[in-house]
Amino acid sequence: METTRIELEQELDVEKPIFIEGLAGIGHVGKTSVAYLADHLGAEKVGELYSHHFPPYTIVTDEKTVELLKNDIYQIKRDDKADIVLIEGNAQASTPEGHFEVAEKIIELVEETEPERIVTIGGYGTGEVVEDPSVFGVTSSDSIQEEYESADIEFEHDVDQIVGASGLILGIGKDRGYEGICLLGETPGFLLSDPKATEAVLNTLESMLELDLDYSELDEKVQESQDVLKKLQNIQNQQSQDQDQQNSDLGYIG
Amino acid sequence: METTRIELEQELDVEKPIFIEGLAGIGHVGKTSVAYLADHLGAEKVGELYSHHFPPYTIVTDEKTVELLKNDIYQIKRDDKADIVLIEGNAQASTPEGHFEVAEKIIELVEETEPERIVTIGGYGTGEVVEDPSVFGVTSSDSIQEEYESADIEFEHDVDQIVGASGLILGIGKDRGYEGICLLGETPGFLLSDPKATEAVLNTLESMLELDLDYSELDEKVQESQDVLKKLQNIQNQQSQDQDQQNSDLGYIG
Amino acid sequence: METTRIELEQELDVEKPIFIEGLAGIGHVGKTSVAYLADHLGAEKVGELYSHHFPPYTIVTDEKTVELLKNDIYQIKRDDKADIVLIEGNAQASTPEGHFEVAEKIIELVEETEPERIVTIGGYGTGEVVEDPSVFGVTSSDSIQEEYESADIEFEHDVDQIVGASGLILGIGKDRGYEGICLLGETPGFLLSDPKATEAVLNTLESMLELDLDYSELDEKVQESQDVLKKLQNIQNQQSQDQDQQNSDLGYIG
Amino acid sequence: METTRIELEQELDVEKPIFIEGLAGIGHVGKTSVAYLADHLGAEKVGELYSHHFPPYTIVTDEKTVELLKNDIYQIKRDDKADIVLIEGNAQASTPEGHFEVAEKIIELVEETEPERIVTIGGYGTGEVVEDPSVFGVTSSDSIQEEYESADIEFEHDVDQIVGASGLILGIGKDRGYEGICLLGETPGFLLSDPKATEAVLNTLESMLELDLDYSELDEKVQESQDVLKKLQNIQNQQSQDQDQQNSDLGYIG
Repeated sequence: METTRIELEQELDVEKPIFIEGLAGIGHVGKTSVAYLADHLGAEKVGELYSHHFPPYTIVTDEKTVELLKNDIYQIKRDDKADIVLIEGNAQASTPEGHFEVAEKIIELVEETEPERIVTIGGYGTGEVVEDPSVFGVTSSDSIQEEYESADIEFEHDVDQIVGASGLILGIGKDRGYEGICLLGETPGFLLSDPKATEAVLNTLESMLELDLDYSELDEKVQESQDVLKKLQNIQNQQSQDQDQQNSDLGYIG
Repeated sequence: METTRIELEQELDVEKPIFIEGLAGIGHVGKTSVAYLADHLGAEKVGELYSHHFPPYTIVTDEKTVELLKNDIYQIKRDDKADIVLIEGNAQASTPEGHFEVAEKIIELVEETEPERIVTIGGYGTGEVVEDPSVFGVTSSDSIQEEYESADIEFEHDVDQIVGASGLILGIGKDRGYEGICLLGETPGFLLSDPKATEAVLNTLESMLELDLDYSELDEKVQESQDVLKKLQNIQNQQSQDQDQQNSDLGYIG
Repeated sequence: METTRIELEQELDVEKPIFIEGLAGIGHVGKTSVAYLADHLGAEKVGELYSHHFPPYTIVTDEKTVELLKNDIYQIKRDDKADIVLIEGNAQASTPEGHFEVAEKIIELVEETEPERIVTIGGYGTGEVVEDPSVFGVTSSDSIQEEYESADIEFEHDVDQIVGASGLILGIGKDRGYEGICLLGETPGFLLSDPKATEAVLNTLESMLELDLDYSELDEKVQESQDVLKKLQNIQNQQSQDQDQQNSDLGYIG
Repeated sequence: METTRIELEQELDVEKPIFIEGLAGIGHVGKTSVAYLADHLGAEKVGELYSHHFPPYTIVTDEKTVELLKNDIYQIKRDDKADIVLIEGNAQASTPEGHFEVAEKIIELVEETEPERIVTIGGYGTGEVVEDPSVFGVTSSDSIQEEYESADIEFEHDVDQIVGASGLILGIGKDRGYEGICLLGETPGFLLSDPKATEAVLNTLESMLELDLDYSELDEKVQESQDVLKKLQNIQNQQSQDQDQQNSDLGYIG
């Protein structure tokens, strides 16, 4: 029984793409940014990643249908610019082993495309609300930092570590010879969703990827995202309740 | 060493059955409903599912004999109506990986019978006591929701997620091409057992499965179930005590 | 890499023995009782069981040498009475999966000897101090309970479940066709060691196994055991301290 | 997918070396001592150990580049004295199974060199600040304790257990026939870094290994180490914050 698996509807058909990861996490900066890219750039969905290490929940959609937690894989073919591969999703692993296993599975997929760059996206909680959030950068090696000079990325910061997929994918990728950068949107940390941090990251990506993003959709997307996140918050409340139930119920969950 | 295994006393001998799952969980709505069906419909027991991912406890029966935690598998052959397969039991997995592994094992068994429909049953805790509990529905796809119009299932609700086996079995089943529905009995969430929610679910099942249930047995069954659940509550108290003991005792359990 | 392994210095050379298990647990009733039997009956040590699922600690002996946590396996050959196999040790698994894996490994060893009976020993915490502790019995099937009528075992009790190895070994053994009994010494539950409960269990074993135990050694053994247990208590204190350290230290343990 | 792996840049080229382990832990005594040896003795780096059982974090260096958690392996060839192999690193496993798996991987590497002695290093928290910290010794067997008489190692102490890698490597090594010692620097336990305890351990190692250490570098090293440890402390603060985020966020980590 395979505990983490990628199901491709079609083989990735890109050349030396920029690979971009954004999964659920602090302020949902990663997930929301990459979801916006996928939407706005007309990305083509090519597959999904499922893992036994995700939390054992299923999502109920607005249509009252069930959805397994998963990560979605997209490709964007561009004529005069680098191709793009995206992975975006509503779950990360729930155990240490799971985090490493999922990150390695993703790197194995990415390796097949010989990516030009790996870009991972997350939020960095500072505990403070700021008017104009920064985008902090962490790279696979310092030699590529000048590459990003024009993209308004801050390399003077106090970030000491990266938790979860964004760090592991960049770090494992580095060990296998792929250069890349982690973009961390500055966010208070206590916000479930942070549109401002997301916009800051999108501005940076716009420059890095030579995009011309239409931000008029952002408000809509942010609203949509907030609906989803409100739902996730309800899930979390239910989860706490289940936890209590679990404690009073032999550890069996509904 | 196989960590989750199904032991069949006899092969399943049904055709395109309706598969119904109900395991220990919130308000024990799932387990109690399916146990009632098994009892009332003269279901034939065909096997059991055991897992290393269940909690490491054993049950002591009223006869002072030991029973491993397990899920029981039954079949019901019907002449002019769809056959039925039931899985009912006193345990769900205690880890994320375990939840996925057990759900996949169950789906693998079910797949062999090419089920017409998958029905999973649980409780949904609302935090409030209601006079006339609803049965909330979540389906594998919205196209089949009209099928259940006459069965008094509520599709207007705030359920955002399903925890554990009921959601995973429906979701994994959906991915493999099987349509189905999760029935969630509205329950306060703080009741160990909720006969009213169970009766509401049974009413729905009666309609869905074209049954003519004799509810006179329900009172008895509910009483029986409450005896069992009182026992489970004692277990849980003991468990808390063991946990304390464990904390004061190097993590070794009796 | 084998995660649970039994290392036998010599093959078990017994016929249809009574197999007795007593591991660290509530009141250390199981471990202390079986250690006393091993000592008093001149048991021959034949091997050890190690597991990756034990807590990741090592014991420091009085001689300031290191000892891995382990379970010891002994045999006792008797001329006119049933042979005996003992497993005694200072650790149980620390995860659900580990509990099941270790219990199955033990059953596999025991199966080779075609045991006449399986006897598992633990403590049952009642929260109350009693003058004359009972020995509660739980059997694999009720038909063998009369066998133990003369052994002063109480079958009227409120035990609803058994936590850990004692229940799993009896339950898995039952599923494979071996009859047996779990003896639970009544103990307050908050005592790290309970010599009285241990003596009650030893009295029962004396009758069951047709032994003539010399209890003069018990005081000494109890004292010795209490020294060990005081050490274990220190370990637990250190463990709490380490846990605090761990919380303030990235989860790295010394 | 291999969950713990050693990547050697070159084969170990030593004969019957002394193997020394020092990983992140209480007071970081082990890690800091062995890092100092590696630095001061011009150790040659030969490889690294990675594990899925490490915490799922990545370190951000001062150059704002990403580093996976890992353990570094070094060798020191000496003409008239015993060769030395060192393993030093910023992570230990985060699960029981992981601790055993990593320790066995290390022993397997060490076994290839037929080590003369295994030396593991950690801190022992006493809860008290002392002027002149002791170095407590725990050996694989008592017969080798006199060997260390001149090295100022205390064998009169209250250490009852060793948590994590230092104990497991010594214990598993012992079971495979390798003699050794665990050195535990006396430390308050609440200090993230304890230079005094580290110096005490280095004094002992200097004698044991027939070294002539230049302690002038120690101040610098301690300062450097404190910078790193301050960073680790920030990580831990972030980790607590993430944990809170995780609790309010479906268990998904950034």
